[in-house]
Amino acid sequence: MKKVVLIPDSFKGTMSSSEICAILSQRLAAHYPGCQAVSIPVADGGEGTVDAFLEALSGERVTVKVKGPYQEEIDAFYGIIRGNTAVIEMAAAAGLPMVENRKNPAVTTTYGVGELILHAVQQRGCKQVIVGLGGSCTNDGGCGAAAALGVKFTDAQGQAFLPTGATLERIAKIDISAARENLAGCHITVMCDIDNPMYGETGAAYIFGPQKGADEAMVKELDRQLRCLSQAIIENLGRDVSALPGAGAAGAMGAGIVAFLGGELKQGIDTVLDTVGFEQIISDADLILTGEGKIDSQSIRGKVVIGIARRAKPAGVPVVAIVGDIGEGVEPAYELGVTAIFSINNVAVPFEKARLRSKQDLAATADNLFRLLSGMGVK
Amino acid sequence: MKKVVLIPDSFKGTMSSSEICAILSQRLAAHYPGCQAVSIPVADGGEGTVDAFLEALSGERVTVKVKGPYQEEIDAFYGIIRGNTAVIEMAAAAGLPMVENRKNPAVTTTYGVGELILHAVQQRGCKQVIVGLGGSCTNDGGCGAAAALGVKFTDAQGQAFLPTGATLERIAKIDISAARENLAGCHITVMCDIDNPMYGETGAAYIFGPQKGADEAMVKELDRQLRCLSQAIIENLGRDVSALPGAGAAGAMGAGIVAFLGGELKQGIDTVLDTVGFEQIISDADLILTGEGKIDSQSIRGKVVIGIARRAKPAGVPVVAIVGDIGEGVEPAYELGVTAIFSINNVAVPFEKARLRSKQDLAATADNLFRLLSGMGVK
Repeated sequence: MKKVVLIPDSFKGTMSSSEICAILSQRLAAHYPGCQAVSIPVADGGEGTVDAFLEALSGERVTVKVKGPYQEEIDAFYGIIRGNTAVIEMAAAAGLPMVENRKNPAVTTTYGVGELILHAVQQRGCKQVIVGLGGSCTNDGGCGAAAALGVKFTDAQGQAFLPTGATLERIAKIDISAARENLAGCHITVMCDIDNPMYGETGAAYIFGPQKGADEAMVKELDRQLRCLSQAIIENLGRDVSALPGAGAAGAMGAGIVAFLGGELKQGIDTVLDTVGFEQIISDADLILTGEGKIDSQSIRGKVVIGIARRAKPAGVPVVAIVGDIGEGVEPAYELGVTAIFSINNVAVPFEKARLRSKQDLAATADNLFRLLSGMGVK
Repeated sequence: MKKVVLIPDSFKGTMSSSEICAILSQRLAAHYPGCQAVSIPVADGGEGTVDAFLEALSGERVTVKVKGPYQEEIDAFYGIIRGNTAVIEMAAAAGLPMVENRKNPAVTTTYGVGELILHAVQQRGCKQVIVGLGGSCTNDGGCGAAAALGVKFTDAQGQAFLPTGATLERIAKIDISAARENLAGCHITVMCDIDNPMYGETGAAYIFGPQKGADEAMVKELDRQLRCLSQAIIENLGRDVSALPGAGAAGAMGAGIVAFLGGELKQGIDTVLDTVGFEQIISDADLILTGEGKIDSQSIRGKVVIGIARRAKPAGVPVVAIVGDIGEGVEPAYELGVTAIFSINNVAVPFEKARLRSKQDLAATADNLFRLLSGMGVK
C-alpha cells in the first residue's frame, strides 16, 4: 500500500479522533514503513472541532477577546485553514462548561460566537465560515450571534435590545441589512448532526433544555419563546425555518444562522469531507480506515463511517471500519460502501472494563489487520 | 483464494471444532464461492475425538461390546480411518459420565479400552492405533487396558489378577510377552496434552483424582499405589516411565501404554496433523484458518493454534487465528508463524453473555475477514 487515509470518528468517552489517528498511523508505519498515512481527525462540531481541522489541514489558531455567555469578557479562539476558511466551535464562546455552576439558558447569549465570525470575516478576510454547534449553554435562537454581526432586533416600542432565551417574545422587528453587508461574499456552513426542529416536543427546549439547566417550567417557557421567535422570523423575513432538520440544534442556533445569516446546515462529516477535499485525497489511496464507538442500525443514517463510505464507494477505495461495538442491523453498511468492520473488543469484558484498555485493543486490532494484509500478499 | 484449510480447536463451553468449521466454511463459500474448503475439526483426545477424525477423514465407526468401568457389558465404539488406523477415545469405555453417581477410581478399570484396541488390531487389521486420553474415571495406570491386550499381572503368591487403582501394590510380576505378540507390527500413539508425571504432587492422583471422586485420603492412597506400580514396572520391565511428561494422564494410562504396550505419547495437535497429512494438505493452500477459545502466553506451549503455526511456517502459508479472547503475552505467536489474530468479541459484554452469541459473532468475524480480503484484492 502506498497511501492509507485514516479518518475515524472519536470513540465517545474513550479516545479522541486524533488519538485514534495517532495509534493507527503508528501501527501502519510498523507494517508498511513506506506507506503514506493521511490523518484526518473527524470534528463533530463540539469542543475540539477547531483543533481537529487544524490537525487535518495546516492552519492558524486565532485568539480573540469576545463576550461570554453572560456578556463578560473572555478569551475565545477560532481556526483559519486553507487561507480563507474560518472554523469556529460554538463551545469556545457559549459553551456549557463555561457556566458550570450558573447554567441559565433563559439569559445566556451566543453574542461571542457572532463576534468570532465577525473577526474572521472583517479582520482576516475569511470567505468561508464553518460553525460547529455542540455543547452550548444557550437557547437564544442564535439572536446573540446575529446581533454581533449587525442584525438589529427591536421591540414593539421601537427599542433595540439583545434577545436571549427568555426575551424572544419581545422581538417585533428584525433588520438584517447590516449583517448581510458585513457578510457579503461570505458563506456560513453549520455543522449539524441532529434533526431536531426549532420548537415542540422534539425541539431545542424540550430535548436539550434540561441539560442546560432548565427545569420543567423553564423548558415550557423557552419553547414558547422559540415559537415567538419563529413567528417574528416569518413576519419579518418571510421565511419559516422552524421545521428544518437541525433548526433546533444548539438552542435553535441552527435556525438563527439560516434565517439571519443565510447559513447552510450540513452534516458534520460532509462538512469535514468537503473541507479537506476528500475525493481528491482518496483518488490515489489504497485503503481508508475509519471507525466509531459503536456501529449499528443508527449509524446508517448520517454518522461518520457511513458518511465516508458513501463518498468512497464511487472511487472504489476499500473502507474498513474499526469500531468499539458492532451492534445489530449493520448489514446495510456493506451495501453503502463499507468493506469490512472489526471490533476492538479483544476480551469478553463489560464496557466499564473495556474502555480502560481501548487504546491497547485498538493498537492490537490495527496491528492484526496490517499483519493479515501483509501476510496475504497485499503489498 | 483456491484453497483454504479450516482447522480450529473447539471454543471450550461454547462451540465444538466441528461447529466452527461449519460456520467458517459457510462464510467462506459466501465470499469465495469457487474456493475449496478443507475442514479438519481438531480432536483433543476427549469425548468427540473419534467423530472429529471421522469428519476430517472418511472412515468407519465400529461398535463393539466391551467391559465398562465396573466390568459390566457396554456398547463402545471406535473409528477406522485411512483403512488401517484406529481412533479410540478412552471416554468411550472408561468415561467419567458413565459412572455419574458411582465414581470410584479405586476400583474402576480401563479394561474396555484395551478390548477396543484388540478388536481394531485383531478383527480389523489396524496397524496404527490412536488413543485419545481424556475424561476418564479410572486410576489404574492402564493395567486394565494392558490386561485386555494380554499383559499378565500376578501377585506375590503367583496369582493372576486384574489390578485397579487400589490394588496396584499387589503386582509382583508383569508379563508382557502375549501383548507384544498381539500387537506385533502395530504402533500405538497416545494423544496427550498434559505434562503431569505418574505420581507425586503434580501426578495423576493429586491433580485428577478429586474430579474422579477421590477424597483426600483416597488421593493419598491412589498416589501410593501408583508409586508401587512404577516400582513394579522398573523391576519387571527395566524402565522408569514415571517422570515422562504425560505419564500421569488419564489415571496414569499414559504411563501404562508406554510401559506395557510400547506406545508413544504425542501432543494432540501433532497427532491430528500427522494423521491427516497436514504438510501435504497445505502445500497448495492460500490460507489456514485456525482458532481457540483463548489465546495467551499459555497457548505458546503446545496448544492448537501454535502447533499449527509451527508446521505451517516452513510452507509459508498464512495462518490466521480467530479466537474468543486475546489474552496477554501473545506476541511470540507471530514469531512462531501466526500471521494475525482476531477476536470474535463484537460487543463489550462479559463472557456469560458473550458465549450466548458466540456463533453469530464468529460468523460475523469470518464474514468481515473475507470481506476485507476480497475488498483488498485478494482473489
